[in-house]
Amino acid sequence: MGSVDFSRLFEPRAIAIVGASAEPNRIGGQPVRALKEFGYQGGVYPVNPKHAEIMGLACFADVAQVPRPCDVALICVPASAAPAAIRQCGSAGIAFAIVLSAGFREIGEKGMALQAELDAAIRDSGVRVIGPNCQGMMAPKNGLYCGFGAPFTYRHDRVGRVAMVTQSGGFGFAVMGLSEADGIGFNRVVSTGNEADVGALELIGELLDADDTDVVAAYLEGVRDGRRLIDLGRRALEANKPILVWKVGNSDTGRRAAASHTANLSAGYELYRAAFREGGYLEVDDVADLVDLGRAFGARRLPAGNQVAVISISGGAGVLLADRCEELGLALPPLSEHTLAGLREVLPGFGSMLNPIDVTAQVFNDFGIFNNVVGLVARDAAVHQLIVVTASVEGAAAERLARELAAIAATTDKPILVASSAPPARAEAARKLLDEAGIPTYPTPGRAAKGAAGLAEFAARRRRLARGAPQPRLTARQDLLLNGARGTLGEHRSKQLLTAYGIPVVREVLIGVDEVGALRQAPFPFPLVVKLDSPDLPHKTEAGAVRIDVRSLDEMKSAVREMRQAALAYRPGARIDGVTIQEMARGLEVIAGTMRDEFFGPTVVFGLGGVFTEVLRDVSHRFAPFDAATAREMILEIRSAQLLRGYRGKPGLDIEALADALSRLSLLAADHADVIAEIDVNPLFVRPAGEGVVAADALVVMR
Amino acid sequence: MGSVDFSRLFEPRAIAIVGASAEPNRIGGQPVRALKEFGYQGGVYPVNPKHAEIMGLACFADVAQVPRPCDVALICVPASAAPAAIRQCGSAGIAFAIVLSAGFREIGEKGMALQAELDAAIRDSGVRVIGPNCQGMMAPKNGLYCGFGAPFTYRHDRVGRVAMVTQSGGFGFAVMGLSEADGIGFNRVVSTGNEADVGALELIGELLDADDTDVVAAYLEGVRDGRRLIDLGRRALEANKPILVWKVGNSDTGRRAAASHTANLSAGYELYRAAFREGGYLEVDDVADLVDLGRAFGARRLPAGNQVAVISISGGAGVLLADRCEELGLALPPLSEHTLAGLREVLPGFGSMLNPIDVTAQVFNDFGIFNNVVGLVARDAAVHQLIVVTASVEGAAAERLARELAAIAATTDKPILVASSAPPARAEAARKLLDEAGIPTYPTPGRAAKGAAGLAEFAARRRRLARGAPQPRLTARQDLLLNGARGTLGEHRSKQLLTAYGIPVVREVLIGVDEVGALRQAPFPFPLVVKLDSPDLPHKTEAGAVRIDVRSLDEMKSAVREMRQAALAYRPGARIDGVTIQEMARGLEVIAGTMRDEFFGPTVVFGLGGVFTEVLRDVSHRFAPFDAATAREMILEIRSAQLLRGYRGKPGLDIEALADALSRLSLLAADHADVIAEIDVNPLFVRPAGEGVVAADALVVMR
Repeated sequence: MGSVDFSRLFEPRAIAIVGASAEPNRIGGQPVRALKEFGYQGGVYPVNPKHAEIMGLACFADVAQVPRPCDVALICVPASAAPAAIRQCGSAGIAFAIVLSAGFREIGEKGMALQAELDAAIRDSGVRVIGPNCQGMMAPKNGLYCGFGAPFTYRHDRVGRVAMVTQSGGFGFAVMGLSEADGIGFNRVVSTGNEADVGALELIGELLDADDTDVVAAYLEGVRDGRRLIDLGRRALEANKPILVWKVGNSDTGRRAAASHTANLSAGYELYRAAFREGGYLEVDDVADLVDLGRAFGARRLPAGNQVAVISISGGAGVLLADRCEELGLALPPLSEHTLAGLREVLPGFGSMLNPIDVTAQVFNDFGIFNNVVGLVARDAAVHQLIVVTASVEGAAAERLARELAAIAATTDKPILVASSAPPARAEAARKLLDEAGIPTYPTPGRAAKGAAGLAEFAARRRRLARGAPQPRLTARQDLLLNGARGTLGEHRSKQLLTAYGIPVVREVLIGVDEVGALRQAPFPFPLVVKLDSPDLPHKTEAGAVRIDVRSLDEMKSAVREMRQAALAYRPGARIDGVTIQEMARGLEVIAGTMRDEFFGPTVVFGLGGVFTEVLRDVSHRFAPFDAATAREMILEIRSAQLLRGYRGKPGLDIEALADALSRLSLLAADHADVIAEIDVNPLFVRPAGEGVVAADALVVMR
Repeated sequence: MGSVDFSRLFEPRAIAIVGASAEPNRIGGQPVRALKEFGYQGGVYPVNPKHAEIMGLACFADVAQVPRPCDVALICVPASAAPAAIRQCGSAGIAFAIVLSAGFREIGEKGMALQAELDAAIRDSGVRVIGPNCQGMMAPKNGLYCGFGAPFTYRHDRVGRVAMVTQSGGFGFAVMGLSEADGIGFNRVVSTGNEADVGALELIGELLDADDTDVVAAYLEGVRDGRRLIDLGRRALEANKPILVWKVGNSDTGRRAAASHTANLSAGYELYRAAFREGGYLEVDDVADLVDLGRAFGARRLPAGNQVAVISISGGAGVLLADRCEELGLALPPLSEHTLAGLREVLPGFGSMLNPIDVTAQVFNDFGIFNNVVGLVARDAAVHQLIVVTASVEGAAAERLARELAAIAATTDKPILVASSAPPARAEAARKLLDEAGIPTYPTPGRAAKGAAGLAEFAARRRRLARGAPQPRLTARQDLLLNGARGTLGEHRSKQLLTAYGIPVVREVLIGVDEVGALRQAPFPFPLVVKLDSPDLPHKTEAGAVRIDVRSLDEMKSAVREMRQAALAYRPGARIDGVTIQEMARGLEVIAGTMRDEFFGPTVVFGLGGVFTEVLRDVSHRFAPFDAATAREMILEIRSAQLLRGYRGKPGLDIEALADALSRLSLLAADHADVIAEIDVNPLFVRPAGEGVVAADALVVMR
């Protein structure tokens, strides 16, 4: 697997339809008709022992008789016959099979035996299989209509440079149809069904490599290999092609429904989001988003930063764009003095000089002036892209305007996006001119802003990637002598692991319970934290076995007496091995944890302590290992990051030291992912800038 | 003003065009042509001394000569001539003038004198004026095209039951055009420009009363009378007609742009949001939203609750809807045993029985079965509305399906929404059948969910309104003896005002600084809070004049000495009148404040203490006065409400007492809004349920 040439799938020399039907409305009949009528140039070989001929094509009794070369078999037989059909394809030298048949894993228990048979047939034959339980594949450009359902019953004339991989055929082909109606054409749509062999990620990878593709769209319910998803995101950035990902099954109800749909269990949405943000994925959750981003990226221009100039004849649209750009992370910078001086010359007294620039309807009637404005603004160094609102301008006026905008676009490589609300039929020629000039058109200002924001985001991620290789590891792999360790390690042992990786922990001493009474002075300056050390009290706070802010020797001694009583009341007979006396750390409490996700592997989660994490779920995730620069991003990503940055006169905290600690924690988790299941550093105290961080408690759980 | 009959504006017997032009492309020519050609049945009277006839119509030298009755004058003269034109309208008995002329307040200083002239003309003449600086009004049904710009150059054939009021003509008419292309027709669109006389809110009120209108859309940059906005929201609920409000100018950049656009300063967005949520407003921020909600409300069915059943042939669409419904506050309940038993009979083995119900493509081919499923589910008492996904089904099949769905709709008053991704041209007849049956159709499942969520939200607000009158006041108006009070009241005095309104405050005593040394015992049990009392130290914490958690008499005495030093270092010569010794309150720290907003009047803001308010901006707003039930909603609206409700085994806090205190605070603010500018209760401690709340500090600022 893996070395097969997917161009055989996407540009097959011939296609066999196994289980072909003479009835053009049946699943086995639809593709015969579509391949015959919608322009496919290769061989079409119906296979069905009951017919000598189907729709005027010679029909073969079995797969073995199909002429060579034949690259793809479309399997339309009942599920029970599919495994044998795959084996026959293998013998006949057919490299790819698309299995439309349903009745495997997705129907639960009853389908499992057949699924196992199919899996074995795939393994034995070496045939690469799409499906089963999929709706097929369509590549309108070369007339490839290998599937069934309403979208396969008519010819799709709009061919574009967007490819799509979908885990739901019904949904994917519906999106295809709607996008076409909205002006976006696809070159290929592949539905993957149960993914018995070829998965969505493998296909996305192949499509990123395709020369005729600028954008890959993906509808995902879940993937099994999270790390591959991450790698693919990086490849997308390198290839300068975004993956527009529509991820569903994110809510509780949705996950349950997805599991029952394709039998795909899946990681939590927050991990997908983290993976998407690391790479070249842009999330969409509406056909309009997909169309808007497809259009934006179709122009092959990326902005150098997030600053946008808005030029509008509708003051209202300008106001709306100001809001929307801010929401979407775009900035509307003030224009340079040079630009303003130029604007003052060409614009009469009224109209706004701010950004958004409102040229007012009056001025708009003189397109010369309007385009002067656009040209001036396009040359402003503070402006990375332009959104031009032409409102309802239509007909010949729109055409003239488009022609001049096209001329301006030719003088700059900054993206220019146009919002035109003219009814499409009344501004068709203008739209075509703009299209050809690499200027995407949007029906509303808000949608243009979404396009611009997608470009800015993707460009920013590419810049981050281009900043070079990650920093080297902060520490080498440490041997932690974890052989035989099981269950939950104690606080002291857990902290030793942190120390081995260079993560600061509070100073502490462990003494016998009886020694406390005899203490003449405390080991560290007050205030202190005092804890009972016991293998029988994993939840010390609940057992009353922790006392913080102890301010004197007397208080310490009575605290130990009281804790002992409380602990024994909580768990009679609990062994108490000693008393841990710790420095009381100060600073902002944060939490850092690692877990080994079934799909994404070792993952680090970061958040502020207590309610921020537990109630507000204000946390960020990264995949271990990662460097300190990545950790820094992770830290600043939480909503409450301002607490770390400093606010209302409060000084900033030591974000650098925190980033360092998180990176080290990620190394610890990644180096020992084979034995460590979870690490919980809680609380980790962050001190003012320059004063570092310190872990006050830690817990390591072995696999 | 106010008693005028707006039907004269919306159904005028004749229209004068003052400043009419013979050139059909000019602002004064466009409406002449449009009124003449697009079906208006009343009189059309061009007024222009330079012409005897314009486009075949008799032209009048001045307004005085226009035949009576004439209800509306369209003013197209230059700004400088507009005030005189208004006066002439008054003399000629013309009740309404729509002023298209620009060059008043919106151009800044230079336009102010003309604006004042116009204002005087309006006042003196009694003419009700729309504009100036507006784009006009359109009512396609009766051929009223009273405005200029591209949308006034062609006939709008699609007439619906949606009316729109827009503060941006360019934007509003663009939205009209786009909505029409998407299947929503308007009966009236009015642009309000500078609102020298008739404002957006007055027009919305008139349109809510119109029999031919089900839905009012409004594009707002800002309104001057926030309380009227609130009243209108209530009227919308009573009239059972939603106001779909598109509010812009919400971000910092947006507010600045809006101010420069219509010269409307405006309250903060958070107050608008609070006002919208209290009443019958649903916010939209995209044409698609407007269309989707317009379509949903056009069916005139409201759900009895937020529970939705999803029935789909596309498993993928079902998964997506599960996510989207959850995001939008809709629940997908389990179906009743009775329904499930019925489903088991009609559905074959595979396909999901969960909600979302996936009937799979195979089953879908038998519409009898499919509609049996829909019918069964529609009768389930747990289901308040249904979303049916017909995916790509088209042509005759779609038609048959639509006919059966229509039959089911006739047997229930629950809303049924259909998501059909068939290309519009391939399912037109089906869509029409569904339309007539009161079943709105959406191009994507996500948009259907938005429609359903809008219905559920509006219905919930109507139920809240129907629950009856607000509770009576918790306390009568108190005389606070505030005559002559100025600036910021001290903590002690501020707390007296709270006490007068029944809001609990901590116990405290004020003693002389010198008396502290002689104290033999503390006035309350330790721990205590100790503060210096000084008129010169408004910011006590910064001055080092507060000490919390004082645990002994010795600590108190040394604390007072240290605070005195610190305060005098902070502000040399500060008068120190005494020492306040307070009980140290415990509980969750919250903040309650009131302010007198310029537009919305006295308003209460609530949030958790410290970073929750300052960094996360997790606050809620209500307009004073309000009852405890409203206060309870306000409390539970913040994102971190779980801290009050209890979480992870932590007990719930006294939300009832907190609601009581907030309501009392709102009464205090409302009763004395003439003299009190702000009240800041910070912190207010909330104790466990049943143990009440207590204010530890308070500050009242006089106007």
